[in-house]
Amino acid sequence: MNKFGDLKTKTVEELEEIANQVRAKILETVSKNGGHLSSTLGATDIIIAMHAVFDSKLNPFIFDVSHQSYAHKLVTDRWDEFDTLRQFGGLSGYTKPKESDNDYYMAGHSSTSISLAVGAAKAIALNNEQDERIPIAMIGDGSMSAGMVYEAMNELGDRKYPAIIILNDNEMSIASPIGALSRMLSQSMASPFYQKFKRKTAELLEHLPEGATYMAKRVEESFHLITPGILFEELGLEYIGPIDGHNIASLKETLELAKSMQRPVIIHAQTTKGKGYEVAEGVGKEHWHGVGAFDVSTGDALKKGGAKASTAIFSDTLVALADEDEKVVGVTAAMPSGTGMSAALEKYPERFWDVAIAEQHAVTSMGPLAKEGFKPFCALYSTFLQRGYDQVIHDICLMDLGVAFAIDRAGLVGEDGETHQGVYDISYLLPIPNMTLFAPSSDSSMVEAMKFAKDFPTPCAFRYPRGAFSYEESESKPFELGKSQTVQEGEDILFIGYGNGVGRAVETAKLIEKTPTILDLRFVKPLDEVKLKELAQTHKRWYVFSDSAKRGGVGSAILEFLSAEKFHDVVLETFEYEDKFITHGNTKLVEESLGILPEQLAKKIV
Amino acid sequence: MNKFGDLKTKTVEELEEIANQVRAKILETVSKNGGHLSSTLGATDIIIAMHAVFDSKLNPFIFDVSHQSYAHKLVTDRWDEFDTLRQFGGLSGYTKPKESDNDYYMAGHSSTSISLAVGAAKAIALNNEQDERIPIAMIGDGSMSAGMVYEAMNELGDRKYPAIIILNDNEMSIASPIGALSRMLSQSMASPFYQKFKRKTAELLEHLPEGATYMAKRVEESFHLITPGILFEELGLEYIGPIDGHNIASLKETLELAKSMQRPVIIHAQTTKGKGYEVAEGVGKEHWHGVGAFDVSTGDALKKGGAKASTAIFSDTLVALADEDEKVVGVTAAMPSGTGMSAALEKYPERFWDVAIAEQHAVTSMGPLAKEGFKPFCALYSTFLQRGYDQVIHDICLMDLGVAFAIDRAGLVGEDGETHQGVYDISYLLPIPNMTLFAPSSDSSMVEAMKFAKDFPTPCAFRYPRGAFSYEESESKPFELGKSQTVQEGEDILFIGYGNGVGRAVETAKLIEKTPTILDLRFVKPLDEVKLKELAQTHKRWYVFSDSAKRGGVGSAILEFLSAEKFHDVVLETFEYEDKFITHGNTKLVEESLGILPEQLAKKIV
Repeated sequence: MNKFGDLKTKTVEELEEIANQVRAKILETVSKNGGHLSSTLGATDIIIAMHAVFDSKLNPFIFDVSHQSYAHKLVTDRWDEFDTLRQFGGLSGYTKPKESDNDYYMAGHSSTSISLAVGAAKAIALNNEQDERIPIAMIGDGSMSAGMVYEAMNELGDRKYPAIIILNDNEMSIASPIGALSRMLSQSMASPFYQKFKRKTAELLEHLPEGATYMAKRVEESFHLITPGILFEELGLEYIGPIDGHNIASLKETLELAKSMQRPVIIHAQTTKGKGYEVAEGVGKEHWHGVGAFDVSTGDALKKGGAKASTAIFSDTLVALADEDEKVVGVTAAMPSGTGMSAALEKYPERFWDVAIAEQHAVTSMGPLAKEGFKPFCALYSTFLQRGYDQVIHDICLMDLGVAFAIDRAGLVGEDGETHQGVYDISYLLPIPNMTLFAPSSDSSMVEAMKFAKDFPTPCAFRYPRGAFSYEESESKPFELGKSQTVQEGEDILFIGYGNGVGRAVETAKLIEKTPTILDLRFVKPLDEVKLKELAQTHKRWYVFSDSAKRGGVGSAILEFLSAEKFHDVVLETFEYEDKFITHGNTKLVEESLGILPEQLAKKIV
Repeated sequence: MNKFGDLKTKTVEELEEIANQVRAKILETVSKNGGHLSSTLGATDIIIAMHAVFDSKLNPFIFDVSHQSYAHKLVTDRWDEFDTLRQFGGLSGYTKPKESDNDYYMAGHSSTSISLAVGAAKAIALNNEQDERIPIAMIGDGSMSAGMVYEAMNELGDRKYPAIIILNDNEMSIASPIGALSRMLSQSMASPFYQKFKRKTAELLEHLPEGATYMAKRVEESFHLITPGILFEELGLEYIGPIDGHNIASLKETLELAKSMQRPVIIHAQTTKGKGYEVAEGVGKEHWHGVGAFDVSTGDALKKGGAKASTAIFSDTLVALADEDEKVVGVTAAMPSGTGMSAALEKYPERFWDVAIAEQHAVTSMGPLAKEGFKPFCALYSTFLQRGYDQVIHDICLMDLGVAFAIDRAGLVGEDGETHQGVYDISYLLPIPNMTLFAPSSDSSMVEAMKFAKDFPTPCAFRYPRGAFSYEESESKPFELGKSQTVQEGEDILFIGYGNGVGRAVETAKLIEKTPTILDLRFVKPLDEVKLKELAQTHKRWYVFSDSAKRGGVGSAILEFLSAEKFHDVVLETFEYEDKFITHGNTKLVEESLGILPEQLAKKIV
């Protein structure tokens, strides 16, 4: 139920008090459960104001990326359950229509909100509901770099559907935003000057000789242009701003105005990231974006230590490779620290680039570097590489260029859940000609995989999990194209592990009576055909372990091989993910729900 | 060899004469072979000027989409082979480094050129070659709507790498461009007015009282802003233009100037599409974009008649469905006539949208319409749907919404070749949860497939070939979810056809001694499990026919099923495409080279 009742009936003072309670609740919950903190604290006042003007069951509230929507959950119907945030079986960290009819759409990838607003506006127009409903999208400045935002604004500005876009500008997207928009927004600080100057000019022009009236209008228009709204106005959107994104009274007023305009309007609201929690306020950029559990009084992380994450190994190894070879270059799309490219970016700023949220451009721009003899590492999360899929095919593989795709967060991502699971990359990359696919299974093989990638002349991609590998080995042999590694010799039964699946294969093997042969496949494209043929003679029951979709995954690739080679007496079972979107929560709990913990698999094998 | 020698040594008059010869050659060749005509004629003078200033073996010449690069081929080293254009074994209709070292990159999908220029500029900067080399990209105004252009300009303008972007503005991209850029470019006609006005203002301000000097500067700046260059300048690019894209002297001068600026420069060149061929000049938009063989004197197509293309059936059926049900809506990304959506767009302009080249936005914007009870048809070519892949997963399937993807040009596309083959869609769509995949096999089943799609409540995609179906049937039963159709009862051998593969299965069956059972699979997701289980009891040799990649394709999906159901005595062979990029040329010839003509397959089966 809604703890605060209908926000449309509250005074501004009451709304401010609600905002404080909401922020305190967010801080308390995120400090225990982890989650997105600074962006969501910064967006709280805007969200309160949205609810003070609009009914979210009637009007499509569209949150870009939607991890800043916690306040929306708290002022609608989820206060009591909020302590289950991001936990298995609990509330999602994103908007989710199945969770509440106050949530219009699910979103975890950035920059979709304006397209969604256009779609909703079209539906509203076709239903003649313009007098009752209007889509309201909130988007952060960091999300404005992705091309699909521009595609959507282009249509919205052209067709003029009524819609409200709130640009939540905290001048602090996840990493450093680049480019025109960021520069333009920062100019807004100068806005009072322009306002004053514009007024003075108008006064002056009144005293000019005849004929100057037209000119006065042009001058006025042109000053209008040099406000931060210029780009939006050129795109056909009405621009209001900048306004204080923490002033609820002014936000309410602006939203009412925008609603009355019956046109596409962009409201530029300036906010402070981390608002209301001084440890996080204004600082941190990436640090306070997504956090684990922490101590509220100091901001220190609660859990520390444990095995080294694969991302950290990527980070160290990339710097080491760049030290050795000046041809090593790389790109990240707004995830320098998430992908571990930050160390290389800092040490070699001329050779590593953060291109902001722009996966398509990130991929394509590395092609010419490979052509010119450089070795680009393109580090993206599995789920975000989907945004650059056509570019991988058309701009890298068709040209057969040696770009290495470092696919982080392959497999389950834990608390982020459905929108971020890294489960399709094998399926969508396998059919691309010229592509080589491999995966390390341990810390030491991660280093070897990267050395291999560095020297590999044609397109390749290697995947690795969020967090630590589940398998440890003291040392690892160098990667050789299409060569697997035997982890354990056994008989009759063959366990094939790929990437982080090797650890699961090893753990499962300990729990069954027989001693299976365990193969670390290393390459899913090309397969180790020699080894597999040999094993097909001696082992008739094969089990595949991999953190990937069953459809078109590792097991499927091996089935294709067995069929082509006419091995019809090998029985293969694959323990990859079933054909369903996978929920959020602690990875172990999610794995248990999928039935893929070693003890569960051991039972299936017996 | 280069027929004209080094263009850098020619006078403007000589260059103009070369341009005329080049245009005549293009017209002659395209009228015989088909190809892209109007855009390439319009771009000829620009290309001649590029070669008159720069060496294409040294400087990266980057042609966006690259179908406008014929003149480049003719003035470098391919005059003599030019009559093989787009023919099997002949010259590609696109730039292709394997064809000539004057070609820097291959491109057939739009809007990649600025990203490629950024990549090349980075390589040049790292190699300290700025004094010798500069990337020169040519891009048409129609390509400016795709988001990746904006992503690339954002980085280019921010990092200021020297690069020349020539915007070839013929105000006539394939279909009607929409949005801000198009409006802005059309304002350029008013440019002389602004120039004059700017001068007058400056004069006037000289006579103003003291203190106005600063203001004069601001006024000057602001008038600068309302020229068509505004958007580019805001993005950090230097803007020159508009200039006459057919004036070789002025083009040369401008290119020299841009080169000397050592910054990112955008040259806005206005051209006439079809220049030099009056039948095509200025008119036609989509009509003269890509053409088949035609009579030069009249412009009439030479080949007519033949079977009805699947696209025409799509077009008619879509209008019929829209007539019946006002909830039917649809979107195309700059391909109204290519996808056959033009008839619906014309009849129901409020319900069908051309969003310009913007596949990401096209896909996502249909989600809310489905959510609000409409039935969106999203018509894209197989190869272009790759651009909206993340959006299909994240914005449609995750929300489980009833958007119907109509995948045109599935399978071989003929003369366009490598960049456009529609071979991966099955592989990349199969792993997405909630997705249903099916395919019609004939004219009448195309209508049934669309009726099924119209009423289907969750995400679905159906694919159909370029041109006519290879299979004919007098009538077709309605589609039922996951139900196949038996085309012919036989014994022992089973032919499974999917989509246009059914026709090939039927033809192949006529050429072998035994009578195989022939199944029109219809659904690859979900499979007709009941029927397949039944057939697995009685038929032990299965052959799969489908116009799709073998990796993760139809055969692979059936292997996954057979393995999961433990049918180990069925031997399956699939006649899908091998794991290689497939060349251009007449579809029959390409199929022969792949060994998949019925007579070739019949031999493999015996």
